Amino acid sequence: MKSATMPLAGGFRLATFRAGFKKANHPDLSLVVSDFPAAGAGVFTTNLFKAAPVLVAMKHLAKGAPLRAIVVNTGQANACTGTQGLENCNKTLALVARATGLSPEEILPASTGVIGAQLKMEAWEKAVPGLCANLGQAGVEDLATAIMTTDKGPKMAAATCEIEGKTITLTGVAKGAGMICPNMATMISLVLCDAAVERAEWQAMFSRAVRTTFNRATVDGDTSTNDSLFGLANGASGVTVQGEALTILEAALEDVLAQLAYKLVEDGEGATKVLHITVRGTDTEAAAEQAARTVGHSQLVKTAMYGKDANWGRIVAALGRSGVHFAPEAVRVSLCGVMLFEKGQPTSLDFDALLKEPLEGTDIAIDIVLGSGPAEYTLLASDLTHEYISINADYRS
Amino acid sequence: MKSATMPLAGGFRLATFRAGFKKANHPDLSLVVSDFPAAGAGVFTTNLFKAAPVLVAMKHLAKGAPLRAIVVNTGQANACTGTQGLENCNKTLALVARATGLSPEEILPASTGVIGAQLKMEAWEKAVPGLCANLGQAGVEDLATAIMTTDKGPKMAAATCEIEGKTITLTGVAKGAGMICPNMATMISLVLCDAAVERAEWQAMFSRAVRTTFNRATVDGDTSTNDSLFGLANGASGVTVQGEALTILEAALEDVLAQLAYKLVEDGEGATKVLHITVRGTDTEAAAEQAARTVGHSQLVKTAMYGKDANWGRIVAALGRSGVHFAPEAVRVSLCGVMLFEKGQPTSLDFDALLKEPLEGTDIAIDIVLGSGPAEYTLLASDLTHEYISINADYRS
Repeated sequence: MKSATMPLAGGFRLATFRAGFKKANHPDLSLVVSDFPAAGAGVFTTNLFKAAPVLVAMKHLAKGAPLRAIVVNTGQANACTGTQGLENCNKTLALVARATGLSPEEILPASTGVIGAQLKMEAWEKAVPGLCANLGQAGVEDLATAIMTTDKGPKMAAATCEIEGKTITLTGVAKGAGMICPNMATMISLVLCDAAVERAEWQAMFSRAVRTTFNRATVDGDTSTNDSLFGLANGASGVTVQGEALTILEAALEDVLAQLAYKLVEDGEGATKVLHITVRGTDTEAAAEQAARTVGHSQLVKTAMYGKDANWGRIVAALGRSGVHFAPEAVRVSLCGVMLFEKGQPTSLDFDALLKEPLEGTDIAIDIVLGSGPAEYTLLASDLTHEYISINADYRS
Repeated sequence: MKSATMPLAGGFRLATFRAGFKKANHPDLSLVVSDFPAAGAGVFTTNLFKAAPVLVAMKHLAKGAPLRAIVVNTGQANACTGTQGLENCNKTLALVARATGLSPEEILPASTGVIGAQLKMEAWEKAVPGLCANLGQAGVEDLATAIMTTDKGPKMAAATCEIEGKTITLTGVAKGAGMICPNMATMISLVLCDAAVERAEWQAMFSRAVRTTFNRATVDGDTSTNDSLFGLANGASGVTVQGEALTILEAALEDVLAQLAYKLVEDGEGATKVLHITVRGTDTEAAAEQAARTVGHSQLVKTAMYGKDANWGRIVAALGRSGVHFAPEAVRVSLCGVMLFEKGQPTSLDFDALLKEPLEGTDIAIDIVLGSGPAEYTLLASDLTHEYISINADYRS
């Protein structure tokens, strides 16, 4: 299904290519080129082991100069690959630069695949000319498909906004069956925008928007060595966004990232459900976040949701060990809108009957009140399933 | 198999009974009575939601008076059951007190089962006289079997030591297919000793010994609402342990608890392997523990070990997100004694071939060096398997 409804921001050309980095017979190398110098933004993994492409991309972004391209490979993550990994990464940029007439410093790299594997340089040398010759022939869905690893399908989102009477388009793609998956390895997301935005503003917008989107999504709690989110804003729409209009653009960016974050959790490895875990009533957002993450990472809560089991005891027990201080008798827990636990004991509702149908759904609301404080936090988490085990016990073999 | 090799400490009598708390047709109510007033010790869950029997046992221990009995039921955890739960717990102790001639304050209660379910008081009333009539007829294995929930088999350990030329026996039993399992709910462990020990010394010995045994074992990271470890020391051997001899007794206690902790992880829900995760070279033990727990709770590491996959990248990635500060290039990781990762990249060994056979084993050593500091920590963790998901997605249904 070619996505007529998924527009590509103006002034960008896309290419994909089957380079043979993986055994599977589909494209594994992708290129995005902006026809105009673009403001770059990047947000990266906080893992101490940062992959070579993460280190190189951080360096290129730190220069603050306009950027022109992003190149993404699957198959090898180029993480934990030492100095050879860094050299290889730079060589791939030199290959792309030579074929496109750009400078290597104008290109951002991203890699995903098995940790510890070096890039297949011979395959790169053979593939890059063909890749660059394809520029402009790929659509958004082709790009979203070519960056996939264990993803079940391509993840795309777009938003438009009107500024100065003109339409600005933001196009986003993401990969990762899990926000947070070091093995395969990585969440990678690209956002292309055809407005012109001052670089520092563009970066600040990304740093803020990830806090309420990608950083509130979890599959398995394992932060990747390669997580990378890139933004390019190239001005092709003829609109320069500044002043108050920046908030309009930021809302559109947040919309795109929120859509992509949801899709990551929805397609979490083996996931059958998206858990929307909201914690309210704490003094600080950090406390609400800590409680929400403890629930969202509890294997017992995740398996109960997979089993369509209204096992509120597991939610309560996770809260009790979360390290967040609260009065147990003040806690209220509801599932799919049904209040299950308050005043230190279960409500008298026949919740198994009430929840039978709601728990069949794919979006499950877990609403928790810990007290009367002003803060709250919402986390998206996946459930934990037999398929998760199959995928991850057999990944390399 | 009646365990001729599992001795019961002197001066204790055991009873088990089928009270009908659970559907299954096997004993679900157990009683331990000491023929002599015993020094009591207890270590309990740190979960903010403490079950009624935990609160009652803490209160009885806090009195500091000699204790005489422990009563344990399965089926209902009596956790998150409000004031009625507390009243019911006290009523069960009154029933046992009446039938044995003891005072309720001399008895410690422990419950395990589904959270939020009230005790079945009618069944208790009918069962207690029969239970008490059985005193002395059950062996250590009967007791260890009657306290089981999802455990695959009874968990027992014993140690003896010679003090003043006499033999002291410590008998331990435990339940919990997971140190840490709030749903079913709980780790419960009892240690019976026929030495006389001053109460404060006996308690201090337990508080120290759990740090290097039970607290270093994990299945799923979910701390129970009911975790309870009880110790009774009744002096039936005629030996009073004091002064330097205390260290001999403590070593025997640590031996018993270490055996039981290993058995808990070995029988972790769905587990096929015990991971021995040792982190060395940190400045503080807390840092080594944090790193070890991050690895031991990583779903990706646990599934890789289940899949017999030498996927060291997942171990390295977990270390990198652990929050412990270290120099990535100083890190060394070996699996089953084979060095896989050092100086920021994989060693050149053909580790898949080297590790094929070792990874078939049930005990897997993961040895990690993070730097040159003096501290270290070892954690026992289970793997994560299809059967874990089956057990926990279907538990209540």
